[in-house]
Amino acid sequence: MKTLIDNLPEFTAGSVWLAGAGPGDPGLLTLHAVNAIRQADVIIHDALVSRQILDAIDNPERLEYAGKRGGKPSPLQRDISLRLIELARQGKRVLRLKGGDPFVFGRGGEEALALARADIPFRIVPGVTAGVGGLAYAGIPVTHRDVNTVVSFITGHTINGDHEDVDWAALSRGSPVLVFYMGLSRLATIRDRLIDAGRAPDHPVALVSKAATPDQLVIITNLADCVDAAETSGIEAPVIIAVGEVVALQSSLDWFDAGELGADAPFNPAGGV
Amino acid sequence: MKTLIDNLPEFTAGSVWLAGAGPGDPGLLTLHAVNAIRQADVIIHDALVSRQILDAIDNPERLEYAGKRGGKPSPLQRDISLRLIELARQGKRVLRLKGGDPFVFGRGGEEALALARADIPFRIVPGVTAGVGGLAYAGIPVTHRDVNTVVSFITGHTINGDHEDVDWAALSRGSPVLVFYMGLSRLATIRDRLIDAGRAPDHPVALVSKAATPDQLVIITNLADCVDAAETSGIEAPVIIAVGEVVALQSSLDWFDAGELGADAPFNPAGGV
Repeated sequence: MKTLIDNLPEFTAGSVWLAGAGPGDPGLLTLHAVNAIRQADVIIHDALVSRQILDAIDNPERLEYAGKRGGKPSPLQRDISLRLIELARQGKRVLRLKGGDPFVFGRGGEEALALARADIPFRIVPGVTAGVGGLAYAGIPVTHRDVNTVVSFITGHTINGDHEDVDWAALSRGSPVLVFYMGLSRLATIRDRLIDAGRAPDHPVALVSKAATPDQLVIITNLADCVDAAETSGIEAPVIIAVGEVVALQSSLDWFDAGELGADAPFNPAGGV
Repeated sequence: MKTLIDNLPEFTAGSVWLAGAGPGDPGLLTLHAVNAIRQADVIIHDALVSRQILDAIDNPERLEYAGKRGGKPSPLQRDISLRLIELARQGKRVLRLKGGDPFVFGRGGEEALALARADIPFRIVPGVTAGVGGLAYAGIPVTHRDVNTVVSFITGHTINGDHEDVDWAALSRGSPVLVFYMGLSRLATIRDRLIDAGRAPDHPVALVSKAATPDQLVIITNLADCVDAAETSGIEAPVIIAVGEVVALQSSLDWFDAGELGADAPFNPAGGV
């Protein structure tokens, strides 16, 4: 173990690593992500990196927030890319740390392109994406034999009822299981479009808030009831929404005890990364 | 870092952990996966766990092969589940280690259900799925602004030309970017169905063999030429197939030097996990 970690790549001064932090549990950090955190001079993180991970980072004065979350003021994407380039040109080891995976609705491609155009060396560190790993912590497999040979991931950000990039009828017919990222505020639209597309009102839906953290909340509901269920529960973003028959497996596969990541758990963030 | 790892959960005797090993690079193992490998009494792995990871595991007498790969003889899924249960009942700490993520076409749901029915305690350890992380090592983001707000993952195993679960027309219209797992032997069918569904013959296709390993091979082609390109190159399974405009970004985002994981690289598998 120690040898594995000690032989990971050196973070070269003047370069940028775009890394995913996974859905929340610090134990889902990859060795490359831990290696990046250890060596970075500055860590530009977004709002989806969990509190448990941020608290485990030594020398937190290295942290700089440049988050994006629906509905809240956030820096322009262009400003973030320029900041990465500026810091790299100062000779810093710049870690851009994102919740989940940088290439799954994380705008990592845009940032990497900006770095490539500016001739800044970069590395991609994939992470466990919340639509897979967060749902696994809720006891929901995104694929299951006899249920689906296709699974689709959709970002909620572009669903606004007027201009929509999504062909709902095709999406619903083509993919038995649908996983929406950041879709809580668009839940009524998702419900209406999928029922219009032919999914039954009692088709299973799971809402998973703050997945893989001590505050994880899982609501098992259906299309007809999901908006009411979200309102009644007071569920908060970020929420992963899973639609499809795999949700029915949750009652059998619900393995995660959120208390494991809580204050009384053996995991001790104060120890630092 | 050390504290983080030392405070990860204890692997209880008589339980089974279903863990993903990621696409190939040992640096993409999660802390939970490393923690599982350290404590396991027996490690039942499949054919998709990379040689680099297997070589890094101390006490390799713990390893037991129960792989599944298209076209090769492999144990029945039921036999694998029964073996996990048998070992757990002997009081072993049983690690079921799969390439990628256990819940993305990994049959992890089936194994977890079998464990739940047998009253064996289990834990899911999500991994970096090859369709995201393997493509990232090829320089291909599965989502990109102005290209797609939907990405779909499809297993090639069930594509056989006769009985197909996939509604190709809907899938193609509903999802601009398609990622096929284990689809090399079905590549001609994939090409035919997607052209029938309206994708242009020059629509971009990437074939990524042995992603995130020293043997990674990336072929950038298009629908019309992809079968010839696969044959000419002699590309070998496992292959991730990406279809969509995100493939065009590869020429700008090709960051990975496969030599980094090779014999002369600083990474030293002999050091053990």
